[in-house]
Amino acid sequence: MNYNQLLENIKKKKSFLCIGLDTDLSGIPEFLLESEDPVFEFNKRIIDATHSYAVAYKPNIAFYESRGSAGWVSLAKTVQYLNSRHPQIFLIADAKRGDIGNTSKMYAKAFFENLDFDAVTVAPYMGEDSVSPFLSYPGKWIVLLALTSNKGADDFQFIQDIKSHQPLFEIVLEKSKLWGTKENMMYVVGATKAEMLEQIRKIIPDFFLLVPGIGAQGGSLQDVARFGLNKNCGLLVNSSRGIIYADKSDRFAEVAAQKAGEIQQEMASILSEHHIL
Amino acid sequence: MNYNQLLENIKKKKSFLCIGLDTDLSGIPEFLLESEDPVFEFNKRIIDATHSYAVAYKPNIAFYESRGSAGWVSLAKTVQYLNSRHPQIFLIADAKRGDIGNTSKMYAKAFFENLDFDAVTVAPYMGEDSVSPFLSYPGKWIVLLALTSNKGADDFQFIQDIKSHQPLFEIVLEKSKLWGTKENMMYVVGATKAEMLEQIRKIIPDFFLLVPGIGAQGGSLQDVARFGLNKNCGLLVNSSRGIIYADKSDRFAEVAAQKAGEIQQEMASILSEHHIL
Repeated sequence: MNYNQLLENIKKKKSFLCIGLDTDLSGIPEFLLESEDPVFEFNKRIIDATHSYAVAYKPNIAFYESRGSAGWVSLAKTVQYLNSRHPQIFLIADAKRGDIGNTSKMYAKAFFENLDFDAVTVAPYMGEDSVSPFLSYPGKWIVLLALTSNKGADDFQFIQDIKSHQPLFEIVLEKSKLWGTKENMMYVVGATKAEMLEQIRKIIPDFFLLVPGIGAQGGSLQDVARFGLNKNCGLLVNSSRGIIYADKSDRFAEVAAQKAGEIQQEMASILSEHHIL
Repeated sequence: MNYNQLLENIKKKKSFLCIGLDTDLSGIPEFLLESEDPVFEFNKRIIDATHSYAVAYKPNIAFYESRGSAGWVSLAKTVQYLNSRHPQIFLIADAKRGDIGNTSKMYAKAFFENLDFDAVTVAPYMGEDSVSPFLSYPGKWIVLLALTSNKGADDFQFIQDIKSHQPLFEIVLEKSKLWGTKENMMYVVGATKAEMLEQIRKIIPDFFLLVPGIGAQGGSLQDVARFGLNKNCGLLVNSSRGIIYADKSDRFAEVAAQKAGEIQQEMASILSEHHIL
C-alpha cells in the first residue's frame, strides 16, 4: 500500500486507529476454544466487528509464534482474511526484527512474501544494513523503533551523545530518516511520552508515527494528537487489549466494536479540528 | 543447561564451536530438494556429521520463518532431533527478539516452551523489562546483543555517552550485567571487532561471549581467543556458512565435518595453550 492510499483511507474512515491483534489462547472467550482454530476465529470476529473503525491492524507476532507452527497458521489465515476482505487496510507485522543483512532479507521475505503484510516493525540497534533489506520491496514499509512506551525505554534510548547532545532515539531518527522516505518508513513512538512528540516532529515532520500505549499502557489520545499530528495526519494510534479484550463474554466482538467506535469518534473530531478532513 | 554442564562439554570436546544452521532452500544441495522436508534433512545430516566437533548449534530463525509454518515445522524437528540425540549440546535460537514485557514473555514461551532451546538472542534497545521475561526460566539463557559484526554496528553502537564517555555497547554491558548472571546471560560480540574484546573483558570478565563473524564475515579465531578467552573459556565462536555450505555436492556433510574438525583442532590447541584443558 502506498502513502496516498493510506491517507485516503484515513480520510474516508475518519480514523487513524490501528487495532493490535495480540491474540492469546488464555485471553479469548472460553467458548471459542472449541473452534478448530480459536485464535483465527477470534481474530475473524474482531475484524468483522471493527473493520469500519480501523485503518490498520497489527498482529503481534510473539503471540502467534508462542504456539509454534500452529500459531503461524493462525497468523497466515488472519493476514489472508484481512487482505482478501479488506485490501484497503494497512497490515503491520509487529515483529521488532533486525539482524545482519542476509538475515534481515529473510525476515523481509517472511513478512512481505510468505505473509503479505504491508509493514513490519524493525529494531534499530544493528544499524543501516539491518534495516535496508526491508526497504527494497515496492509498496512495503518498515516501522522503525525510535522511542518505546515501556519503562525500559529509559535504559538506553535517552543516552545523550557527547557530540550532538541528542539522546539516542533522536540520533536513530536523524540517521535513519535518510535510509528511506515518508513513503516507506514510519516510526514507533510511545504514547506514554506524548510531550516528546513535539521535538520528534521537528526532526521528522513528514513521516507517519505508529503510536502504541493508548489504553492499557496509559497514554492519552488527545496529547498524542496535539503533539504528533501533521498536515497529512501522520499518525497511526494503536490500541490492542483495550479493544480486543474489553469483554470476555459471547458479546466480545460487539463490545470491541463499541470501544473501537468510541476511539474512532474521538479521532474524527480531532481530524476535523485540525482541518485534515 | 547450566554453566558447569556447558563448561564440561567444552573441555570434553576440546571445542567452543557453535555451528550456525542458517539453512535455506536455495543454499542446500539440489538432490536434497526431493526429500519430504529438505531443510530438516539437511540439518540432520549436518548434525550427524559435525556434532562431535561442536558444543552448540544456532539455528537462525529468520531462515525458517521465511517459509512460514512449514519452516517452523523444520525448525521444531531440528530442535527435537538435537535435544533427543545430543542433549549435552547447547541450543541457541538466533532470533534477536525484544519487546515490551508481556510480549517478550510470549517470545520466551516460543523458544523455551514451544521449542526447547537453551538460549535465545535478544536485542537490548527496549531495555530491562524487554529482557527480563527471558531470564525467569531456570536453566535457560539469553544472549544479549552488545557489539555486532556488521557494518551498521557503527551507526549507533559507538555513540558516546556524555556522562560516562562510554560507547553505547559498553553501557549495554554495564547495565545489563546486573539483570542476570554469568549462569543465564551471554553477550553477542562480533569477531570482526576482536581487538575490542580486551576492553569488553574488563567490563564482563566472567560472562560467556557468543562470537559470530568467523569465516564468511572475516573474523580471526586466534584474535578472538587472544582477547576474549577467560579462565573458564568464556567463548562460543560461531561459524555458519563456512561450515554448512562449504560444499554443495552429495559430499556436503563430509566436507562440513572436515571444516568443523579443522576449527575444533585449532580450538583444542588454543584451549591447551591457555591451560583451560
